[in-house]
Amino acid sequence: MTELGQAIERMEQLKESIDIGYLCICAAFVLLMQVGFAFLEGGCLRYKDMQSIMIKIFMNTCVTIVIWWVVGYGIAFGSDSKEFVGSSVYVGFDMKHSKHLGEFAFQTAVASAATSIVSGGAAGRMTYIGYFILSVVFSSVIYPFCAHWGFGHGWLMELGYHDYAGSGTIHASAGMGALMTTMILKPRNQRFNPKYAEHFEPNNPIYITLACLSLWVCWCFFNGGSSLGIANGASVFMSRAIMNTFIAGASGALTVFFIFYLMNIDQTNRYSLVMICNGNLAGLVAITGPCDNVDAWAAFVIGILGGIMMVFANRVLFNLQIDDPVDAISIHFACGMLGANLVSWFDMDTGIVYGKGGYQFAVQMLGSFIYIGWSALIHLITLLFIEKIGFLRVTLEEENEGLDIATTGSCAYEMVELQS
Amino acid sequence: MTELGQAIERMEQLKESIDIGYLCICAAFVLLMQVGFAFLEGGCLRYKDMQSIMIKIFMNTCVTIVIWWVVGYGIAFGSDSKEFVGSSVYVGFDMKHSKHLGEFAFQTAVASAATSIVSGGAAGRMTYIGYFILSVVFSSVIYPFCAHWGFGHGWLMELGYHDYAGSGTIHASAGMGALMTTMILKPRNQRFNPKYAEHFEPNNPIYITLACLSLWVCWCFFNGGSSLGIANGASVFMSRAIMNTFIAGASGALTVFFIFYLMNIDQTNRYSLVMICNGNLAGLVAITGPCDNVDAWAAFVIGILGGIMMVFANRVLFNLQIDDPVDAISIHFACGMLGANLVSWFDMDTGIVYGKGGYQFAVQMLGSFIYIGWSALIHLITLLFIEKIGFLRVTLEEENEGLDIATTGSCAYEMVELQS
Amino acid sequence: MTELGQAIERMEQLKESIDIGYLCICAAFVLLMQVGFAFLEGGCLRYKDMQSIMIKIFMNTCVTIVIWWVVGYGIAFGSDSKEFVGSSVYVGFDMKHSKHLGEFAFQTAVASAATSIVSGGAAGRMTYIGYFILSVVFSSVIYPFCAHWGFGHGWLMELGYHDYAGSGTIHASAGMGALMTTMILKPRNQRFNPKYAEHFEPNNPIYITLACLSLWVCWCFFNGGSSLGIANGASVFMSRAIMNTFIAGASGALTVFFIFYLMNIDQTNRYSLVMICNGNLAGLVAITGPCDNVDAWAAFVIGILGGIMMVFANRVLFNLQIDDPVDAISIHFACGMLGANLVSWFDMDTGIVYGKGGYQFAVQMLGSFIYIGWSALIHLITLLFIEKIGFLRVTLEEENEGLDIATTGSCAYEMVELQS
Repeated sequence: MTELGQAIERMEQLKESIDIGYLCICAAFVLLMQVGFAFLEGGCLRYKDMQSIMIKIFMNTCVTIVIWWVVGYGIAFGSDSKEFVGSSVYVGFDMKHSKHLGEFAFQTAVASAATSIVSGGAAGRMTYIGYFILSVVFSSVIYPFCAHWGFGHGWLMELGYHDYAGSGTIHASAGMGALMTTMILKPRNQRFNPKYAEHFEPNNPIYITLACLSLWVCWCFFNGGSSLGIANGASVFMSRAIMNTFIAGASGALTVFFIFYLMNIDQTNRYSLVMICNGNLAGLVAITGPCDNVDAWAAFVIGILGGIMMVFANRVLFNLQIDDPVDAISIHFACGMLGANLVSWFDMDTGIVYGKGGYQFAVQMLGSFIYIGWSALIHLITLLFIEKIGFLRVTLEEENEGLDIATTGSCAYEMVELQS
Repeated sequence: MTELGQAIERMEQLKESIDIGYLCICAAFVLLMQVGFAFLEGGCLRYKDMQSIMIKIFMNTCVTIVIWWVVGYGIAFGSDSKEFVGSSVYVGFDMKHSKHLGEFAFQTAVASAATSIVSGGAAGRMTYIGYFILSVVFSSVIYPFCAHWGFGHGWLMELGYHDYAGSGTIHASAGMGALMTTMILKPRNQRFNPKYAEHFEPNNPIYITLACLSLWVCWCFFNGGSSLGIANGASVFMSRAIMNTFIAGASGALTVFFIFYLMNIDQTNRYSLVMICNGNLAGLVAITGPCDNVDAWAAFVIGILGGIMMVFANRVLFNLQIDDPVDAISIHFACGMLGANLVSWFDMDTGIVYGKGGYQFAVQMLGSFIYIGWSALIHLITLLFIEKIGFLRVTLEEENEGLDIATTGSCAYEMVELQS
Repeated sequence: MTELGQAIERMEQLKESIDIGYLCICAAFVLLMQVGFAFLEGGCLRYKDMQSIMIKIFMNTCVTIVIWWVVGYGIAFGSDSKEFVGSSVYVGFDMKHSKHLGEFAFQTAVASAATSIVSGGAAGRMTYIGYFILSVVFSSVIYPFCAHWGFGHGWLMELGYHDYAGSGTIHASAGMGALMTTMILKPRNQRFNPKYAEHFEPNNPIYITLACLSLWVCWCFFNGGSSLGIANGASVFMSRAIMNTFIAGASGALTVFFIFYLMNIDQTNRYSLVMICNGNLAGLVAITGPCDNVDAWAAFVIGILGGIMMVFANRVLFNLQIDDPVDAISIHFACGMLGANLVSWFDMDTGIVYGKGGYQFAVQMLGSFIYIGWSALIHLITLLFIEKIGFLRVTLEEENEGLDIATTGSCAYEMVELQS
């Protein structure tokens, strides 16, 4: 080979190294989302159930990593098969190449984040073993197929379904999991008894703020990392994804701030730190799908629509007496469906507002409903199985005492000295 | 074009991709500073006002992102104009190029951090709507001009003003905003009544520690990211900035530790976790301006001077009965002025200790006073306007009850179970 | 030089810039481990001692940065000397080259993490000045020699000792420091009196969770960063290190979850958030040494062994009445020794399970025992000196009142409003 040829080859190797480095950095910060989920959900629950939700999130993170290595990554990304399922099961045993390792790390962290979304529905009353089984099924069956179809060159992607970082593929399908879980489990004891209403207020808005701001930062790597690299021209999608993640998160939060201020929904209080945080997350979920290929003004609008959708879904769920302890359904399910379908409106190449769009509109609609249908079906089967074997719900005594004391024997935090 | 020419062009594209990737990573971690500001200020306030400051910080972050996209970035960096103001207003609507997107993300996050510094002065008694107006003015007028003059090839930069990551451009100007805000608002009720002194102690030193350590890490990206890339020889400034950020933060904290230990300022207690954290931040603010071009020993000295300055300013403000609830003035204003002016002493190329320096000394002095004068003037006008329209200060009842209960109806965190 | 030659040279410069950028990012996130250590140890202690441990960790971080710049980095990495000690003491004064600056930042952050591990042994009863002295000795003598021998081309490395990110070099030696410190200090008052057992339960499992999840993320940069770059073929080790860090952390946590569930060790409670966190950390410590060159299945097994080792060591220490307040010894010492020695079993090139291994087995055993012997010896001398000069242990009154009130005059966090 000529000297020039060698130099070009070394440059190609360098590009690959850069992509791997970028993917590994993104992988680490998508893993950091678990801090966000733990503190978001811990802060939303009652004080007496905080540890239990953190155990659940810690466990599903670990389960997903192991399952994804053994089988999930193979199903999702094991080959470029355009069919129903990727072929190389047990790909984990066979990863020698560093490009594979970088993508594996990133996709594993993404899968863990998806699994954690489901935990919201299980908050405050599901047994650990039941939730363990649900996590295994989610990360070995439910999500790997979703990922293959929409990210891994599967049939939806081939049809033209576009969902960059997964409003539908991840958030709507996992949010549907939270919805099925909370519906099969039934509401927490006295949840909709007005006399106990304030017992179910989020116990720690400060933790929710920590979680939400951290998630926002990690979301930059979640959305930006979906470029799977920066070296080969992908940096334009990556940087646009991050700019849009900034803008939609901001407009989502401001929207909810002004909805509460102007409409005074809460009757007595015009402000709510928790709802501002939720508005931020709603904007982030909605921009996740279209983030790579919409203009900044569209991201601004998508954030606003996400904020409105979250408030609306929150009210509807409350009125239907569906217990959504951590707002997982109104954020991830409702805004995930919104985001997946807004692609066909705002995408710079295929969007309806740019005069394009019949086909894209249909395929986004199809994809998002396929995802929630698939997720609902397998979740239902799994949850009925868990009920059958008796691991669905803790006893009423355990629930009333609080899962922390009942199962771990300790409180979330103590201040013994100040009590005396 | 020859094969070699094509390869060289691809390498140039790769360099740009790397710079964009680096800028986006830095942008995300400068956004993470908002966790630091939220917990620093939340921890410094009284328990009953914690949520209110977090709402303010969340809001100003979102406001800055939106305003900066609409108008701020255009004023600051819209052209290479050497004059008073950058021209391309509404640049946000027009960003297609990924290099622009990466710089926009980074500069937006930096602007949000600047805005959050002002919130310290508004802590515990300003209305949300008043603070909203202040944030809009700060991020659309005050800071964009500061950024254009000192960072965006404006007139100060052309004169030779050197302030790498912005001790003067950011910290002194925003710190002056906090000073004006707290002076116009007047102190919190009973703030300087000795009988109530311990009511105003920081309510959560643990949160302050979380904040301070997180800010230190993010500061590496704040200072290092000011290289705006790594590919074209900037890596030497970037890496030196990070090393100096380590060293000055460390010497600032150790200085305050020993000041308290040796001088026993506090009379009864020789140690203070909160003041050690403040010392660390003081060192970081002071090194922000000179970080790219001073030796490690100079960073060590600058950290020490920052620590001393912070303790001194803290005492002076207390004696003047200026209410500085989160030490924003003694850290950002005092040490920002210090850092901007220490450039002319310690810069390896132009510093007085290296035998250079008359001109640089004058221009740093000029620049830093221009910044605080400009900031003071516009803040004053804005705050008087807010007072005029009646949105300056909450009622005395709301303040005494605590802004959290009065405006959001909830507490920062609860421990209902342990109360029984 | 030819045009091609110039292009190749520019590409080499680009590679170096990329490595520096990568090292600086890793350096920042290894510094972030201090948040993890502060909250892990703060959460494990009694409420009344939380600030004191955070002051210690903050202080040892700052001390290490300064000492490492003045003397430590020179001893450890000052030359490629294959002997007992690196030569260029005071290298800090002489760093102009950016490659040096990037490596310095990373190694400084690593050294700070090592120092913080020792703080666990000093928790709740050591004076600040005594601990200050210990930190100075650790970061100027104990650790720099360890680093030189195992990382900096010293004699152990020349013998073939392989410990990629330092199970032995860092965790076992620092864990031994915690063991010596806690043994010389003697247990906290009433620690092993069964009547007071619940007084010594971790006061804040939520902080421990925050710490553990954050540490897991930072560990990716700790292990991945030990490649010292990504450009020259190192990306394969870097990405494999990160994948294995994911897997071993997960299997460690799951192992402890199932040990507690199946064996019901705790008699009354089958679950423990704190122990799941410890299991995660145990897996991470064990994989630190072998992470670059073992298969995913081996990482899975190493995590399991780490989890088992941690539970076992925890029980042994309790029965020996050795006070290990933050489980530093059972995690860092026990699993560090384990990880250093598992290299010789699972390494893809030299491991016993691959049919290789007599020599590697011997050299790993030698290295790990050298590390703990060296660390024990110098710690012992230093601690006896500190005892001699009267700065070893606080008074019994201070200990009983809690170090926070006794030395800083304030509580870790307050909830004054809810008390009324």
